[in-house]
Amino acid sequence: MSASRVIRARLVQMEVLPGRPADNAARMLEQVRAARTDRVELLVFPEMAIPGCLIGDEWEREAFLRECESCARALVAASDRMIVVFGSVAVDWAKRNEDGRVRKYNALFAAHDRRPVAPRGGPYPFVIKKTFHPNYRQFDDSRHFCDLRKLADELGTPTERLTRPIRIGRLSLGCLLCEDAWDSDYSISPLEILSRRGVDLFVNISSSPFTLNKNHKRNRLYAAHARRFGRPLLYVNHTGIQNNGKTVFTFDGASCIYDQRGRVVSAASPFSEAQLTLDLPIAPSARLGETARPVEDDIAEVYRAIEYGTRKFLHLCGIKRVTVGVSGGIDSAVVAAGYRRILSPDYLLLVNMPGPFTSPTTIRLARELAANLGCFYKELPIRESVRLTRRQINGRRIRASDRLPPQRLELSGFMTENVQARDRSSRVLAAIAAAFGGVFTCNANKSEATVGYTTLYGDLCGYLANIADLWKMEVYALGRHLNRAVYRRTIIPAGIFDLTPSAELSAAQNVDTGQGDPLFYPYHDRLFMSWVERWNRTTPEEILEWYAAGRLEKKLGYAGRIGKLFGTPDVFIADLERWWNRYQGMGLVKRIQAPPILAVKRRAFGFDHRESLMGARYTRRYLALKAKLLG
Amino acid sequence: MSASRVIRARLVQMEVLPGRPADNAARMLEQVRAARTDRVELLVFPEMAIPGCLIGDEWEREAFLRECESCARALVAASDRMIVVFGSVAVDWAKRNEDGRVRKYNALFAAHDRRPVAPRGGPYPFVIKKTFHPNYRQFDDSRHFCDLRKLADELGTPTERLTRPIRIGRLSLGCLLCEDAWDSDYSISPLEILSRRGVDLFVNISSSPFTLNKNHKRNRLYAAHARRFGRPLLYVNHTGIQNNGKTVFTFDGASCIYDQRGRVVSAASPFSEAQLTLDLPIAPSARLGETARPVEDDIAEVYRAIEYGTRKFLHLCGIKRVTVGVSGGIDSAVVAAGYRRILSPDYLLLVNMPGPFTSPTTIRLARELAANLGCFYKELPIRESVRLTRRQINGRRIRASDRLPPQRLELSGFMTENVQARDRSSRVLAAIAAAFGGVFTCNANKSEATVGYTTLYGDLCGYLANIADLWKMEVYALGRHLNRAVYRRTIIPAGIFDLTPSAELSAAQNVDTGQGDPLFYPYHDRLFMSWVERWNRTTPEEILEWYAAGRLEKKLGYAGRIGKLFGTPDVFIADLERWWNRYQGMGLVKRIQAPPILAVKRRAFGFDHRESLMGARYTRRYLALKAKLLG
Repeated sequence: MSASRVIRARLVQMEVLPGRPADNAARMLEQVRAARTDRVELLVFPEMAIPGCLIGDEWEREAFLRECESCARALVAASDRMIVVFGSVAVDWAKRNEDGRVRKYNALFAAHDRRPVAPRGGPYPFVIKKTFHPNYRQFDDSRHFCDLRKLADELGTPTERLTRPIRIGRLSLGCLLCEDAWDSDYSISPLEILSRRGVDLFVNISSSPFTLNKNHKRNRLYAAHARRFGRPLLYVNHTGIQNNGKTVFTFDGASCIYDQRGRVVSAASPFSEAQLTLDLPIAPSARLGETARPVEDDIAEVYRAIEYGTRKFLHLCGIKRVTVGVSGGIDSAVVAAGYRRILSPDYLLLVNMPGPFTSPTTIRLARELAANLGCFYKELPIRESVRLTRRQINGRRIRASDRLPPQRLELSGFMTENVQARDRSSRVLAAIAAAFGGVFTCNANKSEATVGYTTLYGDLCGYLANIADLWKMEVYALGRHLNRAVYRRTIIPAGIFDLTPSAELSAAQNVDTGQGDPLFYPYHDRLFMSWVERWNRTTPEEILEWYAAGRLEKKLGYAGRIGKLFGTPDVFIADLERWWNRYQGMGLVKRIQAPPILAVKRRAFGFDHRESLMGARYTRRYLALKAKLLG
Repeated sequence: MSASRVIRARLVQMEVLPGRPADNAARMLEQVRAARTDRVELLVFPEMAIPGCLIGDEWEREAFLRECESCARALVAASDRMIVVFGSVAVDWAKRNEDGRVRKYNALFAAHDRRPVAPRGGPYPFVIKKTFHPNYRQFDDSRHFCDLRKLADELGTPTERLTRPIRIGRLSLGCLLCEDAWDSDYSISPLEILSRRGVDLFVNISSSPFTLNKNHKRNRLYAAHARRFGRPLLYVNHTGIQNNGKTVFTFDGASCIYDQRGRVVSAASPFSEAQLTLDLPIAPSARLGETARPVEDDIAEVYRAIEYGTRKFLHLCGIKRVTVGVSGGIDSAVVAAGYRRILSPDYLLLVNMPGPFTSPTTIRLARELAANLGCFYKELPIRESVRLTRRQINGRRIRASDRLPPQRLELSGFMTENVQARDRSSRVLAAIAAAFGGVFTCNANKSEATVGYTTLYGDLCGYLANIADLWKMEVYALGRHLNRAVYRRTIIPAGIFDLTPSAELSAAQNVDTGQGDPLFYPYHDRLFMSWVERWNRTTPEEILEWYAAGRLEKKLGYAGRIGKLFGTPDVFIADLERWWNRYQGMGLVKRIQAPPILAVKRRAFGFDHRESLMGARYTRRYLALKAKLLG
């Protein structure tokens, strides 16, 4: 340690490759070597930097665990003349759960001069995450890891006893793995416990995925902590993408260093690998320079996460070429414009597939979009194939060998709409994307996904649904953002924004006469949002209650007037039940078979918002309210 | 209470409809009325009888929780002159988690004479499940419920203190919600704790889904418990199906009563609603009559769960008519024969879709199968549509508006295989199933699902994959069972069993010359099973280690000789890596978009076996072993 009480610290905001300990460790060892050259004294890597976090039940594979252990030992062995802090899995091979699985901890390791440094008071040479593990949203930690509380219980020790600083020479590190630096399951904050025992600086390696507005909150909280305890706080988070199969999360990094007055003195750009190095005076009254980070607006933040997540997911899948089915509508235009930021024009193919009800308007807009993007474009009509399918089925008789009377098959208008959508995706797009040498995209938005206003094996197909966590109105906003701020020119034609949203699958869905989707997005987006994204998610019971009390607009944050939209309660209720039935019925049936969804907000469909197929359900209180309202 | 120390007890093995508290409570109230007529003194319902267990994040909806509470109050109010025991969710509205969610317990309620009866020593009028909640397989309990340990910790009380019998008059009930009546997180068994405090009989309402061999184990364990503590044990489980979206579980019931010597004195048939009523002498030395239940073989047990789960899932989705694409192979034949047990012949349509490489052999077998089943049958060729797709894409040029050179598209042989599979499912089957008035099935087995030997939007489509938890060899066994024991005649033609398994998608997959799938199922099934179903799941590291040591046959339980299959290590390793790459790569990509899978064993794909898309991975130790073996 330097005698001047200034310590050269470096945070490594690295991309963690989930499930690939050897790759992660190799890059960490490179960082250790570079840090030694730069005379770094304290080198900090993020939580679970070796194994990754979201790796499903890979935690149950013992060969994987052994590989993680061997990587961690290599890092400890490399900590010559340096303190190295990193997160990984710790295994207690002697303990097994009731179903035979070995005991594991989400742990912080510290090493100095080739040896592990343990916080005193506990049985293990590492810091253990959390009194109780997070068990909300996408988290599955309590499935895999033993928490501090359980361990304390076994040892007959208060958890506070196991919460100690790590002391190395004259330096005392308060190490944390809590996402929000505050664990409500402690009676007092772990920072408080640590600082009572004397801490020079806090190191928080808690890593978490991007969510809209997360960083603002974290920033406020961490700054307050550093200020309150009068100690610098180092926060490191990793980058990259991780998934639970169905839901793909981006990790944004955004690591930073707070001084003892809570000011950000160094900050890493989000969504890129970076190192923050700082000579950190650890005396109580030292002052550091201050830098500020610009606050962006929501859609810009969301766009950055989508672009980053999409690029990384393409890379993960080893995909170079992408085909986008473009209808001339806003969703496919936004998806196509987004991919053009990631791929060169010769790796992007836009395909328009006119059917019996496609208007010249939308074909013209699709062409214009492709011309603006300068990528490949092809029109492949589906009319002949739709005719063939109708001819093969309509009016045909089916027979049984038995004495059953034969039956005649007939495709209704609605069924023929789905025939068109499936023909586009499963027949044309899947084949042309393969011939082009890649995959095709799913352009579904969250509004459609919520109520299943989409065709299974049709427009719900694709290798990734990268805008499926955005409501329709947010897709429009993203389109405007792409033109205004990303491309700085009209890449998505104005006509696409003006178009009535429509599937163009029947004569009744005519964009030129303004006939389109049965959804009024400014209202329905808000309604669906309250079912899916609010932390205390609503059901028709709350909606009807608020409606009856005249408070629905305010509760949903809808700017218009509900009464103007629906007139009478029976119309309002019919609309509410129509979409609730679809949300809990066919919407979910379709979501189960949907592509992976890129999460950018709280409660993305899939692993974050877990659902069971149970059919549409109404509480008795709802039914009573409804009966009262309808007289 | 009767003074004679004989108590008339009734267990209600009911179908629980998940997410429908009012429906469940209404049927429970009917049971209460019937029980009163029959002078029942102790009426026992299963765990979570009001809300259901697998309901995803529905637990976060407060309107739902309030409805559950109101239903529980109604049951308490109905407990006139009777003890009623049931499971439901208990809510502590005053306590909230760190993310705002209200505190919930998985609870056992007991009521007597219209009042709740509480175990003494705790803060709540109900019994709380488990010290720590199950967090393996499909369980998500720790996400939603506070466990006994956390509560004990808050109260500063040992968990043992909160584990008390419920006393009603002279009767003392030892109530349990532990799946295996043994909680490894206690230092001693909860039964032991309860019995030390004096218990007349044990009531275990722990409910769990069917898994192969579960009941044998449970039976052994519970019998031992009853014997050891010398007290009768009442075990009640519910029936019905519940799902986590992706994975569908059947609940088999199989409730029973053990006397104080551990003998089964009354048992309910599995997979059907039933009541067990018994005048139970609760004096220590009383003897009861004994009944035995036949032990069935595995495939019969599995078949019963598949038939039950499929029937219930059809009902849940409101589906009456089913279309099965039949290739003439074993998978579709088993699926079709299974549906014929559930549906009358006029509600079942078999469709054969000959393509360019379909042999007369398989068409003949498909026809024969349909004739044996007496249901509707139709042949709809896909040749014309495949030609059309090839014509629309092959040799076509794509252009960009820019200065990019045009490119020419070409479908390879492999791509054309997938075109055929997609044409069958997404174009023909989806349309004809709609025109017939229902859905079509997914006939994929677990071997295919593991390594993605199936086409996305092709044969992996369907409303439910009801044999996707069975390995290929198990599908054959199920086929034989259907002929031998279910139909008791040759409903699946012998030729289907003799056929080489083949997709018939290219000239190289010719069943008549014995060319087919690239999998040798007797071996590969065993290999894949070790990756997926073993509790300590293997990776190529263990496989190669066993191979090198000459122990692989024994470890996998493969009857043949590996050396005979692969000759040299390089051939063995190439095969191992080929399938491991597919299992972790395209296999998972496809599973993410697969239909719901009916679980019948441990580790069904989906929510039971959680996976993250991370690409194929090998440990360093594997790579070293491989290098050594290859010299």
